[in-house]
Amino acid sequence: MARAGLDFWFTSASTYTYLTVGRYEALARAADVEVRLRPIRSVGALTGATQLPFLEGTAKMAHMRRDIERRAARHGLPVRVPFPYPAPDVGRANAVAMVGVREGWGAAYLREAYRLWFAEGIGNGSEANLRRTFAAIGLGDELARILALAASEEVGSALAAETAEARRLGVFGSPSFVVRGEVFWGDDRLEDAIEWALHGRLRAAPVPSAAPACQ
Amino acid sequence: MARAGLDFWFTSASTYTYLTVGRYEALARAADVEVRLRPIRSVGALTGATQLPFLEGTAKMAHMRRDIERRAARHGLPVRVPFPYPAPDVGRANAVAMVGVREGWGAAYLREAYRLWFAEGIGNGSEANLRRTFAAIGLGDELARILALAASEEVGSALAAETAEARRLGVFGSPSFVVRGEVFWGDDRLEDAIEWALHGRLRAAPVPSAAPACQ
Repeated sequence: MARAGLDFWFTSASTYTYLTVGRYEALARAADVEVRLRPIRSVGALTGATQLPFLEGTAKMAHMRRDIERRAARHGLPVRVPFPYPAPDVGRANAVAMVGVREGWGAAYLREAYRLWFAEGIGNGSEANLRRTFAAIGLGDELARILALAASEEVGSALAAETAEARRLGVFGSPSFVVRGEVFWGDDRLEDAIEWALHGRLRAAPVPSAAPACQ
Repeated sequence: MARAGLDFWFTSASTYTYLTVGRYEALARAADVEVRLRPIRSVGALTGATQLPFLEGTAKMAHMRRDIERRAARHGLPVRVPFPYPAPDVGRANAVAMVGVREGWGAAYLREAYRLWFAEGIGNGSEANLRRTFAAIGLGDELARILALAASEEVGSALAAETAEARRLGVFGSPSFVVRGEVFWGDDRLEDAIEWALHGRLRAAPVPSAAPACQ
């Protein structure tokens, strides 16, 4: 039988994607589920949205910041508040991620790039983020080659094609997980998606108790 | 020591609030946390938003419908798809909820009104929803009195004051849970809010495994 798997669609602009990047590998390993990284160009390119999902001065923005801070602490992920938003160069960060997925270092890149954004305030796609990320993952000498490739028309077209595919599947935000045609939106649906990959449904909730269950 | 508690802010327009209404009582009982029902007038009155959170024909709408269907099944809550959206008379439904909170039948009203919406396609605030809900909870003879009270200026002003208080606290959507000044938005944060009420923080996540943990 083929190993269960899911597609993890994302844009490097997404703040909540930090929580997923910080925990999907351990969850997937424990469940023996394969996770395929699928970067897109941007949420705007996906849905036609013309404004950021979080606007300065709104209660929704304040909640996003605090919610991520609380949940990162739960997952043992570092966060220095306030973290910068929006990220400096999302287009470049996503193109680099696409190169990384093809060359096999996409997961390592994402892990370190997101850590720099949230733990050190160095946002995705910035010069400093790219330089430090590639140094940390042992590809510092390849940075110029990788950036040239990321800026190429071919990689741009591939990202556009992936964005079109995400739209076709019903993806409209990041992170999203697609499993057997089902779309699960949001880091808080990662467990649902893994469960669906394994069982094709969500099993009954545990007996009510203060969460997390069974601790 | 005072019993731990949280405020459950909602509008009867909200679809995800069905999941919360269907499960908060058992969770709160198991955790010995008091839940106070706090209806508001509408999300538009709260945030100034002028359009519905879900628009027909969008991927976000499709996801909301399917996500609620999947999660309701997990929680053992009935859903007949497609359920109607938006609800027919949210203003009236919230005013009735406010009367119910004052008179002590708010929880029973919400439980039955939301069940009718999602299990039988009879949306919140409609004549049929109100008639059947009050019959089911043993207050059928009081319907005229309750509706007159719900339509009164005094109840309208109280709802407006509650809406202003929700805004002050940083609430911007339904359901939201407020615990010790912390806002938790969304049915998927109910467990976080209960945990915060008990411990003032989110404890470490369980050892990674396919969700739900420990089943």
